[in-house]
Amino acid sequence: MTTQERPERIVVVGADAAGMSAAHQALRSAKGNGRAVDVIALEKTRDTSYSACGIPYLVSGIVDSEDSLSARTPERHREMGVDLRLDANVVSISLEARTVTYIDTAGVAETVGFDKLVLATGAHPVIPSWATGHDGQLVTGIHPVKNLDDARQWLDLVLPEPSADPESSPEERHAIVVGAGYIGVEMAEAMFDRGFATTLITRSAVMSNLDSDMSERVMNSIVEGGVQVLSDCTVKSVEVVDGRVQSLTASNGETYPADVVVLGLGVRPATELGADAGIPVGDFGGYLPDENQSVAENVWAAGDCCEVIDRLTGNRIFAPLGTHANKQGRICGYNVVGGKQQFAGVLATAITRFTNTKMHVEVGRTGLSTNAAIKAGFSPESLVTVGGTASGYMRERSTIATKVIADRHSRRLLGVQIVGGHNSAKRIDTAAAALWGEMTVDDLATMDLSYSPPFATVWEAIQLAARRLADRL
Amino acid sequence: MTTQERPERIVVVGADAAGMSAAHQALRSAKGNGRAVDVIALEKTRDTSYSACGIPYLVSGIVDSEDSLSARTPERHREMGVDLRLDANVVSISLEARTVTYIDTAGVAETVGFDKLVLATGAHPVIPSWATGHDGQLVTGIHPVKNLDDARQWLDLVLPEPSADPESSPEERHAIVVGAGYIGVEMAEAMFDRGFATTLITRSAVMSNLDSDMSERVMNSIVEGGVQVLSDCTVKSVEVVDGRVQSLTASNGETYPADVVVLGLGVRPATELGADAGIPVGDFGGYLPDENQSVAENVWAAGDCCEVIDRLTGNRIFAPLGTHANKQGRICGYNVVGGKQQFAGVLATAITRFTNTKMHVEVGRTGLSTNAAIKAGFSPESLVTVGGTASGYMRERSTIATKVIADRHSRRLLGVQIVGGHNSAKRIDTAAAALWGEMTVDDLATMDLSYSPPFATVWEAIQLAARRLADRL
Repeated sequence: MTTQERPERIVVVGADAAGMSAAHQALRSAKGNGRAVDVIALEKTRDTSYSACGIPYLVSGIVDSEDSLSARTPERHREMGVDLRLDANVVSISLEARTVTYIDTAGVAETVGFDKLVLATGAHPVIPSWATGHDGQLVTGIHPVKNLDDARQWLDLVLPEPSADPESSPEERHAIVVGAGYIGVEMAEAMFDRGFATTLITRSAVMSNLDSDMSERVMNSIVEGGVQVLSDCTVKSVEVVDGRVQSLTASNGETYPADVVVLGLGVRPATELGADAGIPVGDFGGYLPDENQSVAENVWAAGDCCEVIDRLTGNRIFAPLGTHANKQGRICGYNVVGGKQQFAGVLATAITRFTNTKMHVEVGRTGLSTNAAIKAGFSPESLVTVGGTASGYMRERSTIATKVIADRHSRRLLGVQIVGGHNSAKRIDTAAAALWGEMTVDDLATMDLSYSPPFATVWEAIQLAARRLADRL
Repeated sequence: MTTQERPERIVVVGADAAGMSAAHQALRSAKGNGRAVDVIALEKTRDTSYSACGIPYLVSGIVDSEDSLSARTPERHREMGVDLRLDANVVSISLEARTVTYIDTAGVAETVGFDKLVLATGAHPVIPSWATGHDGQLVTGIHPVKNLDDARQWLDLVLPEPSADPESSPEERHAIVVGAGYIGVEMAEAMFDRGFATTLITRSAVMSNLDSDMSERVMNSIVEGGVQVLSDCTVKSVEVVDGRVQSLTASNGETYPADVVVLGLGVRPATELGADAGIPVGDFGGYLPDENQSVAENVWAAGDCCEVIDRLTGNRIFAPLGTHANKQGRICGYNVVGGKQQFAGVLATAITRFTNTKMHVEVGRTGLSTNAAIKAGFSPESLVTVGGTASGYMRERSTIATKVIADRHSRRLLGVQIVGGHNSAKRIDTAAAALWGEMTVDDLATMDLSYSPPFATVWEAIQLAARRLADRL
């Protein structure tokens, strides 16, 4: 005798990369297992599965439409079997009752029960106090770069204002980008592209997750590319006229005109819902999933709301990146229907660029910086080697500076950083693979990498750098 | 009491990549050790330390001068302490007497003694019988692509012939490239660039060290790029008029006009000298160095004259590449002055491209092909995944087809092959690093690789391919 089983209900909170990866993988795995599941995905905005990393390129005008940034439309998700509810703002979770309560489009509170819950609530942009008025609202012209609503706001902000006298040449507009991490650098590129006189302000250094000598190379390239950079500098205040930002006063005492101010100060995990429900969070405010991405009985978490394990140190870090979100989401999808897939940790691998007609600089990094290595108890030794991305006689050649960091005692590779021209930074993946395999600097120096004059030098640039460090250790 | 020691004499036979790497490393290491050494390098041509891989780009006209292909001039080698003797054709070696005899520039036989000997005699191009006349000399217009003398010959051959009537438009010239490995493909690019109607003939397939499905992708791209390709085809005969090649008859029965014929049939190890002296050679005719590159007492060998160990199978293969030559030469340099450095084997990693205004295709490969894996006793499973080199909305995006091969039982990664557009093929290094570390297909699928819209998709192309294969295993 068989009983008619109620399908298991999986509720996913947050319908971007992590959440929708989880939702679709759960459906696929359930189908594979012959399990009956209902998957409900609750999303507080009207957008789903968009490329947040593409937003700077939408703002710059390289990408012509926000639709291009969406991997799948809501309709497509629904056709594929996900009960996707947009404008569904989750306000509370009860782990005991196994319910999620959200406010729907009509402003009505709805409560749904779950058997399994996936938290994929992402992160909030950091908003400094000077960015908001007395009403707590952002000053007009000051805005972060987090979701598609922000992108739409930015598209409005960067459009040239209609001139009173159409015959007169438009006045120069000024953009200030605060924060010089990935988003800051990419938004500086976008603002420059949009014709703004652009200033990048950072409290420490440009791309401060690089060692300072490499960070300086990036900064010099960006300055050469036409952007003013103020390092070791913070914002003291903003001057507002008629509710709109007018200028900004920095810790160096100077005042800078500002038609727009980009907030590129990073993000913090959006974990209020889970924390209120009793799920623990860590030093960075993120959930602390186990190796199966579980955060409580029948609850999993994925993406920017989670802290992750740094494979090199075993410590938890906060590394909000789309790559991890997708991988973790997929793992949650397997595991909510009985799987036991594990997330294997991160190396903090990342890549970006700053490009315009005057300059093209690429930046890649993986593993520990020198400071992080010391903090973790290693004895890092390092050097920077400047080489080429192709043979010296080929027009494809650009310069590539590679910093290799290894432990003096164990010779283990700890980190690699690249700053260079065209076709330089993606080579960081080779170093990431070596780190993933816990290889030594000697392995990187001797491994069999590809060579042909348009693509490399006969001693591949990162390998030459590794060899020089290996010789010194 | 100290005795005045005679400096140890190191003789290097062959002064290209392997030989000169050995010579300079020996000098550096001796200096580091406080040892006194004399280093004599004997070279039968007048050229040293040139980039053989750059020759197709010299022939095509991309590289403007043969000087550009030389890493160091003979004068520079001498200033750095190497007693470099050009036009020194070594004719015999005696291991018992520890002497090397060569014919010098004046045609006089000279004998020099050695304490340590490094053989870096490279390889000979394969010359088929149809390429030579009754006198055993190459028919005019038919030529291999091995050294700088060949390059000079090719520069003469590709220059347009002066027309009898300068007003008439020049007749179309025909080039036939025989052999479709790296050199064949690169020379097809060069011949096409020089305005020849170009035909590529191969007895098997284009880039036959790829699996056939990937090889076919390369062939289709080359055909789209304007080159006629005849696969599974050999040369039956050449028709010669006034000592110059006129046409070529293929195994398909057709006759093809040919102003020039490129011999791209590969090379064989140049080991006659050592073999005559009693040094063993292997199945491919190459020396069989131990892990320290030693081939006999006080004798080492490096570069294209050697067979190498395939790390994946443990078998010896013949893989004549500049990368190995440089690494092995350097190891010999260490070891001739007391070092114990080891060569860690190869993965047969390689990269090339075919490019013109109509087509740009890049090819990368590492590890075992499916056939090689079966032959080595593995149970290979594989699939091809077509992805992008950048996000779909970025202008940097080109197509990348990735074939991942792994063992069904152990899940170990066995090989990866890439055929794609701009910025595709160099990603093979990431796979090579994974193979070097003996990782599984799951490692490649989950490792932390870099993502940003201009550089990759959020699931990096080779990682997506690995994941799909991992799911299937």
